[in-house]
Amino acid sequence: MTEDLHQSSRFTATYRIAAPTYEEAKKIAFAIAVEQTIECPYELVDGTPIADTIVGQIEDLKKAEAGAYYATISYEPEAVGDEMAELLNMLFGNTSLQPGVRLMSFELPETMYNNYPGPRFGRSGLRDLCGVPRGPIFMSAIKPLGRSPKELAQMVYDLALGGCPIIKDDHSLMDQRYAPFKERVLQCVMALADAKEKTGRKSMYIANCTTDGLGFLERAYQAKEIGADGIMAAPAITGFTMIRDLARDPDFGLPIFLHPCFSGPLVLSQDAGISPFCYYGQLSRLAGADAVIFTSFGGRFSFSQDTCQKIAEGTESKMADLRANFPVPSGGMRWQLFKEMVRIYGPDTIFLVGGALQTEGPDLTANTRFFLEKLAEAVGEK
Amino acid sequence: MTEDLHQSSRFTATYRIAAPTYEEAKKIAFAIAVEQTIECPYELVDGTPIADTIVGQIEDLKKAEAGAYYATISYEPEAVGDEMAELLNMLFGNTSLQPGVRLMSFELPETMYNNYPGPRFGRSGLRDLCGVPRGPIFMSAIKPLGRSPKELAQMVYDLALGGCPIIKDDHSLMDQRYAPFKERVLQCVMALADAKEKTGRKSMYIANCTTDGLGFLERAYQAKEIGADGIMAAPAITGFTMIRDLARDPDFGLPIFLHPCFSGPLVLSQDAGISPFCYYGQLSRLAGADAVIFTSFGGRFSFSQDTCQKIAEGTESKMADLRANFPVPSGGMRWQLFKEMVRIYGPDTIFLVGGALQTEGPDLTANTRFFLEKLAEAVGEK
Repeated sequence: MTEDLHQSSRFTATYRIAAPTYEEAKKIAFAIAVEQTIECPYELVDGTPIADTIVGQIEDLKKAEAGAYYATISYEPEAVGDEMAELLNMLFGNTSLQPGVRLMSFELPETMYNNYPGPRFGRSGLRDLCGVPRGPIFMSAIKPLGRSPKELAQMVYDLALGGCPIIKDDHSLMDQRYAPFKERVLQCVMALADAKEKTGRKSMYIANCTTDGLGFLERAYQAKEIGADGIMAAPAITGFTMIRDLARDPDFGLPIFLHPCFSGPLVLSQDAGISPFCYYGQLSRLAGADAVIFTSFGGRFSFSQDTCQKIAEGTESKMADLRANFPVPSGGMRWQLFKEMVRIYGPDTIFLVGGALQTEGPDLTANTRFFLEKLAEAVGEK
Repeated sequence: MTEDLHQSSRFTATYRIAAPTYEEAKKIAFAIAVEQTIECPYELVDGTPIADTIVGQIEDLKKAEAGAYYATISYEPEAVGDEMAELLNMLFGNTSLQPGVRLMSFELPETMYNNYPGPRFGRSGLRDLCGVPRGPIFMSAIKPLGRSPKELAQMVYDLALGGCPIIKDDHSLMDQRYAPFKERVLQCVMALADAKEKTGRKSMYIANCTTDGLGFLERAYQAKEIGADGIMAAPAITGFTMIRDLARDPDFGLPIFLHPCFSGPLVLSQDAGISPFCYYGQLSRLAGADAVIFTSFGGRFSFSQDTCQKIAEGTESKMADLRANFPVPSGGMRWQLFKEMVRIYGPDTIFLVGGALQTEGPDLTANTRFFLEKLAEAVGEK
């Protein structure tokens, strides 16, 4: 099989391998190629067609920083069929348990994307829905857990009155007795309708639908029926495949926002896990999310500016004709960070500000206007 | 609220916090208590009932090894209701994104277990099913990906003839064109029936049902209808909540084996993620798995003997009246390791040997007998 044939027909994953020498890295790369496919001693398939097709092939191996190499390994599309679970498993199933190996990115041949329509709305669709044709989009969250649906709906109303284009549930709002799911969604949807009557402008309300197993799809449909404008889910809890099921369901038709809770260990290590570019960028789009929330530099969490920039790149990198989705940096964002955020993320970004907006003063409507002004200033000063 | 009241009514999580001083660790512990519950500046709830109930409370903070502390934080059961997604989120949702914080274990009050019946069979039930009343249980896997259902079924037959009590699909066998799910399960089930006719003894066949979203439950039921004796799934792909849905479904009734693929990043780091004791031990039982496969010391992977021993402890540690489940060490197990494995894991263990059994010689039946002998020897020599 020639290099070209490989590249056109097979899909590839690039791993960062911690290794002192090229030879050592090559040995590990070969071990990955075997572990991720046949998961048995190579001698058992040597000389058989399985060795020529199913076993992963090292396509490229090159030096990364000191003590590390990038290995690109190709796999056979038929070995994963059309199931995302099989794809995830082949990209990083058992190898995820190997210290010193990190999944950096993947590349699929065009035909494999037939099973992955990607974001239904993507950036331009979401801009249409929230009525912000260009520049960064402002977004806020209602919180904390413990407030009643009425109290949370009041926040939605106040934020909408201030002109907040997108308002979401905090990710901890699920189905607590304090604020049961259906009641919360209903109250928030009604609050938006009231606000629209007053301002003439419709904000979007994104309902958190993360829950157990099948319940997730049920809840997403309930949110839609009640009148929510989008849903949020945490793929590290629901599984990415559930997101794809919903994203490509022709009957659903709402934008999907992803939340990063529980995903930390998958991305935090330099040596292991999955790169944030791949996890929040590539995988979120492959699953069909329209926007992906992640913890930004400058807040309570730890990603570097460089990592954040790479996540943003991942949301628009070439993946056949899959739509780009929105990066949503968050986690302790304050207006003082806006200028730097505009510089790093560019205009195609949703700026999610939660707690800082609530602590700015007692009037959420005034606070929203203040943050919108600060964002406009940051864009103007760029 | 007194300490006693806390402990009887609230649930707790213990985190390992990397911190140079007690004061620093306390600051981080308080940040966790806030992040995992209200996720907003504490001043927004200070003096309100939310601060007294919903916000996590530091119950204990003590020195671990140098540069680290253990913080035990209590949470309010009502804040998570009866959903496992909410529980996972409160134990480690956003905090999973905080470097230097690791979820070590959790403890629930008795009442919370009403939502978690745990393993349907557990150790004693599985012993009844596979006919091994005491001592370690031998198990093998059919592989590699690329073989036809007929070829895989032939392996099942050969292994069963040798007396292998439990035989499972390799985790990469999902629904490939080479060996579609239903056809594979059917052939393997038929092979076991043939073997039983010859030996009078029934081995168990565990079908890998890991797949996308809803498809997982569908496939588990198909496996049952066709006649499989148990199912396997990878919770890092399907989500733990899906496992619980199946485990507590009164109509299902098959034992559930968990596979660790894709779970590596969650457990590998010392500083972040979830301890293997908690992930493979506590969480697998909470979800209701009857056996949990993990990568053992001595093989291709990296867990230390101490970590492996802790996983085994997690499968039987006190969790109300939840049954203990089976630890299934695997990942490059060879008979030469049996003695040490018996010493570390004790008799209540399933020994999963995959590739090494196939490379021992061309006759899988003879190989199985050889490995069973070696295991018996290892137990005798203990």
